[in-house]
Amino acid sequence: MKVYSVKDLLVEDLLLQEVSVKGWVRTFRSNRFIALNDGSTIHNIQCVVDFEKTPEEVLKRISTGAALHIEGTLVESSGKGQKVEIQVTRLEVLGDSHPDEYPIQPKKHSLEFLRENAHLRTRTNTFGAVMRVRSTLSFAVHRYFQNNGFNYVNTPIITGSDAEGAGEMFRVSALDAKNPPLNEDGSVNYKEDFFGKETNLTVSGQLEAETYAMSLGKVYTFGPTFRAENSNTSRHLAEFWMIEPEVAFMDLDGNMDLAEDFIKYVIRYVLEHCKDDLEFLEKRLLDEEKTKPQNERSSMTLTEKLHFVLDNNFKRVSYTEAIDILKNSKPNKKKKFQYIIEEWGADLQSEHERFLVEKHFKCPVILFDYPAKIKAFYMRLNDDGKTVRAMDILFPGIGEIVGGSQREERYDVLLEKVKTMGIDEKELWWYLDLRKYGTAVHSGFGLGFERLVLFATGMTNIRDVIPFPRTPQSAEF
Amino acid sequence: MKVYSVKDLLVEDLLLQEVSVKGWVRTFRSNRFIALNDGSTIHNIQCVVDFEKTPEEVLKRISTGAALHIEGTLVESSGKGQKVEIQVTRLEVLGDSHPDEYPIQPKKHSLEFLRENAHLRTRTNTFGAVMRVRSTLSFAVHRYFQNNGFNYVNTPIITGSDAEGAGEMFRVSALDAKNPPLNEDGSVNYKEDFFGKETNLTVSGQLEAETYAMSLGKVYTFGPTFRAENSNTSRHLAEFWMIEPEVAFMDLDGNMDLAEDFIKYVIRYVLEHCKDDLEFLEKRLLDEEKTKPQNERSSMTLTEKLHFVLDNNFKRVSYTEAIDILKNSKPNKKKKFQYIIEEWGADLQSEHERFLVEKHFKCPVILFDYPAKIKAFYMRLNDDGKTVRAMDILFPGIGEIVGGSQREERYDVLLEKVKTMGIDEKELWWYLDLRKYGTAVHSGFGLGFERLVLFATGMTNIRDVIPFPRTPQSAEF
Repeated sequence: MKVYSVKDLLVEDLLLQEVSVKGWVRTFRSNRFIALNDGSTIHNIQCVVDFEKTPEEVLKRISTGAALHIEGTLVESSGKGQKVEIQVTRLEVLGDSHPDEYPIQPKKHSLEFLRENAHLRTRTNTFGAVMRVRSTLSFAVHRYFQNNGFNYVNTPIITGSDAEGAGEMFRVSALDAKNPPLNEDGSVNYKEDFFGKETNLTVSGQLEAETYAMSLGKVYTFGPTFRAENSNTSRHLAEFWMIEPEVAFMDLDGNMDLAEDFIKYVIRYVLEHCKDDLEFLEKRLLDEEKTKPQNERSSMTLTEKLHFVLDNNFKRVSYTEAIDILKNSKPNKKKKFQYIIEEWGADLQSEHERFLVEKHFKCPVILFDYPAKIKAFYMRLNDDGKTVRAMDILFPGIGEIVGGSQREERYDVLLEKVKTMGIDEKELWWYLDLRKYGTAVHSGFGLGFERLVLFATGMTNIRDVIPFPRTPQSAEF
Repeated sequence: MKVYSVKDLLVEDLLLQEVSVKGWVRTFRSNRFIALNDGSTIHNIQCVVDFEKTPEEVLKRISTGAALHIEGTLVESSGKGQKVEIQVTRLEVLGDSHPDEYPIQPKKHSLEFLRENAHLRTRTNTFGAVMRVRSTLSFAVHRYFQNNGFNYVNTPIITGSDAEGAGEMFRVSALDAKNPPLNEDGSVNYKEDFFGKETNLTVSGQLEAETYAMSLGKVYTFGPTFRAENSNTSRHLAEFWMIEPEVAFMDLDGNMDLAEDFIKYVIRYVLEHCKDDLEFLEKRLLDEEKTKPQNERSSMTLTEKLHFVLDNNFKRVSYTEAIDILKNSKPNKKKKFQYIIEEWGADLQSEHERFLVEKHFKCPVILFDYPAKIKAFYMRLNDDGKTVRAMDILFPGIGEIVGGSQREERYDVLLEKVKTMGIDEKELWWYLDLRKYGTAVHSGFGLGFERLVLFATGMTNIRDVIPFPRTPQSAEF
């Protein structure tokens, strides 16, 4: 007998057929109704047991978490909540789940408790939905780029280059941890390490992706990146996945077009392909919001937030305009901002970004032409000599979701900047080479994948949208 | 004027239209014919310059590697090798490339030289083709699994668990390298490290993927994995990408079906989507083979090798049968094998695997039911008590391409095995939990992505199929 997935049982036309299904018990009530789930969908299939014909010792073993193999007839359901159900003719317990020991009981668990049980948490509706949405989003990312002529490039995870300067790095080593070999001056002798030099985990694949853009034209990365920053917040992970497209011959305007088109594509894709999961997550978010004080509640539902991005043109505003708006804004004048905007050159905080998006423009915002001083060395200097062709995309609720720029393509200007910033130019010989041999305007951006999953699922802690979060003091599993 | 990609210029119907294109000079001959490439395809577009109307100083700057913006009329070409060409009306040099300094000259470079210039090597036909095939293959991987109801799961890269035992690991640390904090007994005090414990780079996502299979049903990983083994060979990398599907309720037979179907799908996908690149790589391989002595040449062209996989059923053979065949084989009796097969229990070497595939069965082979002693702790023990439900898939030329197994689903048997192997069971509490709560038959396999790219491109050194290879003494870029 063919084994069907629960998803297929619920959508295919199989009425009155003999079917077989394998899954895990979510609930068992009245010694009769099994809600069975196999992960293929958020919905369960109801399996109705004839308890009079089923031995007592079998009925006892049907408890939450147990794995079952069920055969029976698919019939219309007279009960509420489902169209079809299985009249069980054969039931086999594949794996028991002791009711007193199983951590995932059929009740509401705290997100913190579920984090401690990350190996079991996808057995709940919430995490099943989140991780299916995450998977679908990741496929949408690949589809978008591949359908638009981009090549996927796997930039290195272990890097000998520490020039990017995006943050604190983790050291990768195979040396004896306690007694590393030392040089005569007492420093660690990395020449004896596995790679013959000091190596770290990458903070960004951008510089390497640029080398591929300057030959293959359009490329993107999608891989893990790392920050050894001691930030114990709901927005930071030590290990997270980043998407970084890079395109030759594209300027900052093209970069904005690409980012907006890309984000709308992936949001549209999950709206179309994850209806059931998003419906559940929307309800979940509404319930969660109800526990908050009125003034902290979101003014939009999950679907409204997704459509806010999909249905609006992203407003393009220069940093200089934004500073003017913020300086003259009510919360600035009334000192409601935690960080008061006093003058041009200030770094914007999440509160300012959210004000621009949620209160002032009421649409997603792309800020561009930032002060050179607060941005990275590789961004293209404007003719004014003080701003660079950088852009940040700001979203409701989360603030910055994308950071990008047109890259400095002029050898002399880049070299000067590298020297000014105190970066060892020898480390960057290959990056400088791109400006020596056939240089051209090129641009790209970075998008932290978990921020996108957070936005798309309405979850509020970034640890809940990656399978096994790595944070300070925590690398369990 | 619309800027076209070279690929579009060559396939779209744009004859006699005014077109614009940006790319890099591959060659410039007779002061007239520019071969321009932008990475969108292996083919160049020929751009014909009217040298009498073009200033001498501009002509001088048209050298290999220079970035150009060209406008002109697309016309039929009377020359050999291309159907269309651009009659140039406007030419702008975007970025020069000094002819005496540019490393990628229009001549044959050694693969070793190109590895040292990995930031520029995709500017050659060979590496452009290899990396486009790699990108297409990776998309085929995602398409296959997503179209078949699998969820993509990002298992952790930094792991606190060292129980998998697949090989030597790299340590990840943020402690002071020279003077790490010590415990009273003199050992390094990892409690003070970033994660509060000793952490390493993952060697496999399998164990974590199993936790997701036992809730979401069908999952796959596709991410970087690491081995700190000092293997300086053409088959080993310290950092490589691995694909690991894992499926609940699937036994070893299902696992074999899945692996065969998956491999055939991705091979078929590149054959359909990378025709031009594969055609080039096939010719390249033929040329390379000509430089080898007759007896070392492959009996198949690249396309023949791909069809060898596509058009044959994979022959399923037990390890025990394979040992019998090998023991009685000519090369074994005549002591032509480097490692003579003497008895049951021997670990097979590449030479044996290739004999079975290339000489004996003449088709891809799946070996199964290996001796427990030479396989990992998590593989399901057969009733004979001495073999496990493991499988290896063997390919022509490269030997093992896939290793997989049905996993031990019985708590007691697994725990016993963990103890016997001297693994700390406390490290594996979460993995053992899967066998305590709703356990079921489940299976999966691992496929080293670079091995697949090697096979599909006909390249012979694994360092040439990953953008920036990490090997002992080498982590450049």
